[in-house]
Amino acid sequence: MSDPRASGIVVANPPWVEEFVDWESRLPAPEDRMRLVIALARENVARRTGGPFGAAVFEVESGAIVSVGVNSVVRLGNSALHAEVIALMAAQRRLGSFTLGAPGLPRHEIVSSCDPCAMCLGAVLWSGVKRLVCGASHEDARRIGFDEGPVFPSSYLYLEERGIVVVRGVLRDEARALLDLYGALGGPIYSP
Amino acid sequence: MSDPRASGIVVANPPWVEEFVDWESRLPAPEDRMRLVIALARENVARRTGGPFGAAVFEVESGAIVSVGVNSVVRLGNSALHAEVIALMAAQRRLGSFTLGAPGLPRHEIVSSCDPCAMCLGAVLWSGVKRLVCGASHEDARRIGFDEGPVFPSSYLYLEERGIVVVRGVLRDEARALLDLYGALGGPIYSP
Repeated sequence: MSDPRASGIVVANPPWVEEFVDWESRLPAPEDRMRLVIALARENVARRTGGPFGAAVFEVESGAIVSVGVNSVVRLGNSALHAEVIALMAAQRRLGSFTLGAPGLPRHEIVSSCDPCAMCLGAVLWSGVKRLVCGASHEDARRIGFDEGPVFPSSYLYLEERGIVVVRGVLRDEARALLDLYGALGGPIYSP
Repeated sequence: MSDPRASGIVVANPPWVEEFVDWESRLPAPEDRMRLVIALARENVARRTGGPFGAAVFEVESGAIVSVGVNSVVRLGNSALHAEVIALMAAQRRLGSFTLGAPGLPRHEIVSSCDPCAMCLGAVLWSGVKRLVCGASHEDARRIGFDEGPVFPSSYLYLEERGIVVVRGVLRDEARALLDLYGALGGPIYSP
């Protein structure tokens, strides 16, 4: 039996995700991968299951989809369950390893519809992914009221110095358009 | 049914935690609270359930223990499950809110046996706690091989500017001694 005060913590995507993703597809181009995570973010808003953020873990070379995540902070009552955190946890669960960079595994990357917040940037660093690909920028998120936390240019440098390739601004206009729409519609901003 | 690729993600403390903590106690002084989280960290190492880090969420004024967390990265195969993340998730689960700063709730703080890494510092910011209390320093953790990620003096300033009181170095010698012991014994360093 585990500590009942720390049990019942649920980490899961909403039910629609399973059918929404074509799990057998291979997405070779960064733009294809970004389109998927933007579509996940859009669907998350449309179905009212969370904020306008999506992420996925891919095998870098094959383009296989390992896991996805959509923002689930309000739905699951848990401020750590950003899209990136769920995608990384799900990938590690699937591969049975606390690092996606374990020997013998293919190289992994995380693709996020928006520059990661401070928490998620740290989570990316610990996850073992070799590449981080982002769509919308911190400024795009802040413009509609989302705080991104203490992330600085030196934060990205820190990851790069540890061998993580960082690619930002992929399909930024498309990713930003979803954020702007969310802001215009008055979607909840759940930063404390 | 939820997405099976993101289900089965377990977040829980090891079983010994439930009996180890005197849940009815009130710990008024910061040092008493720090002693608890250092003891949790020590027990986590002694029982081989994880790394030398412990954390707990308290009601600031009453000193009531809301939740605790011990590092569970290797045990649960999940690089995000640092002590602070588990403690914050457990507190939010217990209170049924994605923010510990919701109207009507008492003020909450998190006490950690070590300065939080970049991920946990972000998680603290999103959690709604009003105070962060730390024992050992980043340097103490780095000396035995743990990376702390992109945390800068401006990171702490960022939290303070948003109303979070930061208190560092509480019982630092005691907290550091445990880290040094772990390092000397050759305990696993699971940063990627």
